[in-house]
Amino acid sequence: MNLPTLSDIQSAHSRIRPFIHYTPVMTSGQLNKMFDCELYFKCENLQKVGAFKFRGATNAVLLLSDDEKKRGVVTHSSGNHAAALALAASMNGVKANIVMPETAPLVKKNAVAGYGAEITFCKPTLQAREETTRMIMEKTGATLVHPYDNFNVICGQGTAALELLADKPDLDFVIAPVGGGGLMSGTSTCVKGLNSKIKVIGAEPFNANDAWESFNSGQLVPSVNPLTVADGLLTSLSELTFTIIRKNVDQILTATEESIIECMLLVWERMKIIIEPSSATVLAVIKENPELFRGKKAGLIISGGNVDFRKLPF
Amino acid sequence: MNLPTLSDIQSAHSRIRPFIHYTPVMTSGQLNKMFDCELYFKCENLQKVGAFKFRGATNAVLLLSDDEKKRGVVTHSSGNHAAALALAASMNGVKANIVMPETAPLVKKNAVAGYGAEITFCKPTLQAREETTRMIMEKTGATLVHPYDNFNVICGQGTAALELLADKPDLDFVIAPVGGGGLMSGTSTCVKGLNSKIKVIGAEPFNANDAWESFNSGQLVPSVNPLTVADGLLTSLSELTFTIIRKNVDQILTATEESIIECMLLVWERMKIIIEPSSATVLAVIKENPELFRGKKAGLIISGGNVDFRKLPF
Repeated sequence: MNLPTLSDIQSAHSRIRPFIHYTPVMTSGQLNKMFDCELYFKCENLQKVGAFKFRGATNAVLLLSDDEKKRGVVTHSSGNHAAALALAASMNGVKANIVMPETAPLVKKNAVAGYGAEITFCKPTLQAREETTRMIMEKTGATLVHPYDNFNVICGQGTAALELLADKPDLDFVIAPVGGGGLMSGTSTCVKGLNSKIKVIGAEPFNANDAWESFNSGQLVPSVNPLTVADGLLTSLSELTFTIIRKNVDQILTATEESIIECMLLVWERMKIIIEPSSATVLAVIKENPELFRGKKAGLIISGGNVDFRKLPF
Repeated sequence: MNLPTLSDIQSAHSRIRPFIHYTPVMTSGQLNKMFDCELYFKCENLQKVGAFKFRGATNAVLLLSDDEKKRGVVTHSSGNHAAALALAASMNGVKANIVMPETAPLVKKNAVAGYGAEITFCKPTLQAREETTRMIMEKTGATLVHPYDNFNVICGQGTAALELLADKPDLDFVIAPVGGGGLMSGTSTCVKGLNSKIKVIGAEPFNANDAWESFNSGQLVPSVNPLTVADGLLTSLSELTFTIIRKNVDQILTATEESIIECMLLVWERMKIIIEPSSATVLAVIKENPELFRGKKAGLIISGGNVDFRKLPF
């Protein structure tokens, strides 16, 4: 299995740099005092489309051959990856086909359509999504850009940690959320490549702890109908992301729904930035493990800020 | 009447600089496209205590004599100025007395108490607030720091515009919200002092349009029981702020409640930052006057980000 290296992530960064936002690293004296450690928030909620996903999607689109560019890209997703691929494709004159369940919220349909992608609706089952995607690939020759089980996507996601460590190299910890493992794979590869002494932690909702189970049992355990407010962390690891995570991640910590919601509100109130529940998971694991982080410097990858303000969990 | 000058604001900036955040100027490609102009958001929601008020309060505290510092400061307010004065005082070893109506929300009481101020509760009438304040001044010799009818406070508030124009000098407009007029006075003095060609606009809720009426009639019209979601803009101008505003402001524009709420949500959704309704008023006047701003560069003073997330207007 071909695993990404730091150098792949550095190349990805040079490639995508003209298209992405170099996001700020924010701090809060109040939160540092409250958690008794130094927190450095890498704000991918301020990235284009409001999520780190734009990095991976852009890298994947830029690495298409001219012929592939003509035939377009396709993915099935109703979340941040769909919007990210739609925008990355349209910025590069590539057609994007997005397969979405017909039950997806209108706001997400509108966002993807607004970036100029063609949406194909299907029944809300994984089988229907995969079949519809395959059909589009056969008909158009479009290249599948998987949200995380994709070498180039993982390299793109790793560039957030690359910027974080360029701005703040002397960290004790880097923490990122784990869903399908694309962000975690890129982040951990980058951090360990730059400085193996920095501990890399994955943060996962206790109610969707398949990565925690997989990591600790050594066997890929799929996620089965998880019930969590962290809607970006519902997916299972792939063989590729599991392999990278086993190699580079030091520990996976879980957080309760209560902690995740409390930490999300805390960041909104004290830092005045919108973060989505999945992002709050990284702060929630610090809250639940104070002895591990006391007096330390922790970099937190804030994965995104796409929230439905009419369905807030508080 | 002694009016502040650009040079007073520049001195205030040197004085308060070690205590305040130099806040970022944010932009959004999506909003620029939507409003067909270039918007530069001066993010005072990211200022300490979540509002520009910390600038004026800090300037006022730093200009106290040693003897005045020993006797402390006092103000009556339940809003951002109370928290700002409490923190500015505590950072400088000065005691702050805050007079608050007993009906103030618990979250505001806690914030002010958390900054180490002593709170005196009173009946929720202006008369009770003023009497209680006078009583504290007589008893302790504390100096009154009025939220806006105060030369030093106004100079401090003007430093946000000073930073905005340092970062982005070639603006066509600078827009700030108008409540009691402290921010508007400091902003307009600063902008006109630096470049008289830049148009300075005050933004006010249509439902609390006393500054608009005063400005256009030439007579100070008090605000009478205004009903608006912009809870920071309920107060009336003072003789001092009215005089400065008449001299330096080009125009006051009003916005409906619907526009204010819509623009607040728009900034949350697209920029992933929390702004309070009062701040959304500056974008709402652009929305309601598209012909005035089309193709222009506008600097927007985003006054604060203190919102009760359990009582959202959308």
